[in-house]
Amino acid sequence: MGSLASPLPPLRSDAQRNRDRIVEAARELFAERGPDVPMATIARRAGIGTATLYRRFPTKDSLVGAVFADQFAECVTAVDDALADPDPWRGFCTMLSELAVLQTVHRGFSAAFLSGLSGTDMAALDEDRSRAVRAFHELIERAKAAGRLRPDFVPADLALVVAAVAGLVTLFPGDATETARRMVAYLLAGFSADHGGPPLPPSPLTIHHLLAAVR
Amino acid sequence: MGSLASPLPPLRSDAQRNRDRIVEAARELFAERGPDVPMATIARRAGIGTATLYRRFPTKDSLVGAVFADQFAECVTAVDDALADPDPWRGFCTMLSELAVLQTVHRGFSAAFLSGLSGTDMAALDEDRSRAVRAFHELIERAKAAGRLRPDFVPADLALVVAAVAGLVTLFPGDATETARRMVAYLLAGFSADHGGPPLPPSPLTIHHLLAAVR
Repeated sequence: MGSLASPLPPLRSDAQRNRDRIVEAARELFAERGPDVPMATIARRAGIGTATLYRRFPTKDSLVGAVFADQFAECVTAVDDALADPDPWRGFCTMLSELAVLQTVHRGFSAAFLSGLSGTDMAALDEDRSRAVRAFHELIERAKAAGRLRPDFVPADLALVVAAVAGLVTLFPGDATETARRMVAYLLAGFSADHGGPPLPPSPLTIHHLLAAVR
Repeated sequence: MGSLASPLPPLRSDAQRNRDRIVEAARELFAERGPDVPMATIARRAGIGTATLYRRFPTKDSLVGAVFADQFAECVTAVDDALADPDPWRGFCTMLSELAVLQTVHRGFSAAFLSGLSGTDMAALDEDRSRAVRAFHELIERAKAAGRLRPDFVPADLALVVAAVAGLVTLFPGDATETARRMVAYLLAGFSADHGGPPLPPSPLTIHHLLAAVR
């Protein structure tokens, strides 16, 4: 079999394996502790030397970018899709639901996103982010112009959605995705100019969750 | 001055001082680590012996009850006041806003409330809590009967409000109370049957918060 296969040169393959182990270790550690975790800790978890880590990823930014590249791309796609929808309000609703679900599914991404507040610089992702923010602004203007989004909605209100979903991930980890759908439906009804939010998904929570929360 | 004052007997005073130190230490530690913190740690922080701690508070429940008695009483009062309002929807809106602000101001209470999820038994507060839950159910029924609260609202949706505010406390500690008011106004607009939520308070967040969050 070895003679039939056409393997990559051993050095390339080792390098790729190291890279995968680093990204995997970083993804785990970001999920556990946020993206401020030291590079040395990531090297230790990956079972490689610090020199090897810095050879693959000269800066923390480049590593954060590699770990969350897929999720950032999904965010950008969600905003682009929303902007391409001929009905800007439908686009807006779909986008917020998708971003909320993304936040509950990729908790490492969410943790990085949140602890990013305390100063991690993700310069590698700057361009995508700026484009997504511009598209988000454009979408808001169109949904307001269509009379569907209330005029006093501000772009920073997206931070309310992110915070609300982050609270669900912390408080109801087993039901975060389902509760996030219901939360977003309520918020969209609140955001709408004409009470035209999407239908409300059923609540996975019962009065027992509430009692447990108070207990 | 000493001869004019009528001091408590020294023993009573010592006992009171110990009690105050214990409650203060417990309040701090609950705020820092939630109510699962061991009794011995609380005794150490209060600078007293474990035997003295157990003489004052024979069970963890009695200590949790003492620490959060005021906040629990405020919760019960908020619900009672809401039920006493001749307009059940106005009562409902006022109550949710008050509870959200309470949650942002007394963060120790909120932390206890939240980590209570993992099993702390606050039996000492059981009666008040049960009464508040019954009153909350009654208020929901009245607001629905008045046609102001949407019929598909369920009592467990209160957990969504608690989680949303908890997320704000974590993400925007300096703006938690203001952002909570805006969050609750949006959610109430979403909860209302006729888009009749309270007016939206201005957002203390700017696009820079959002960029910082993504950064």
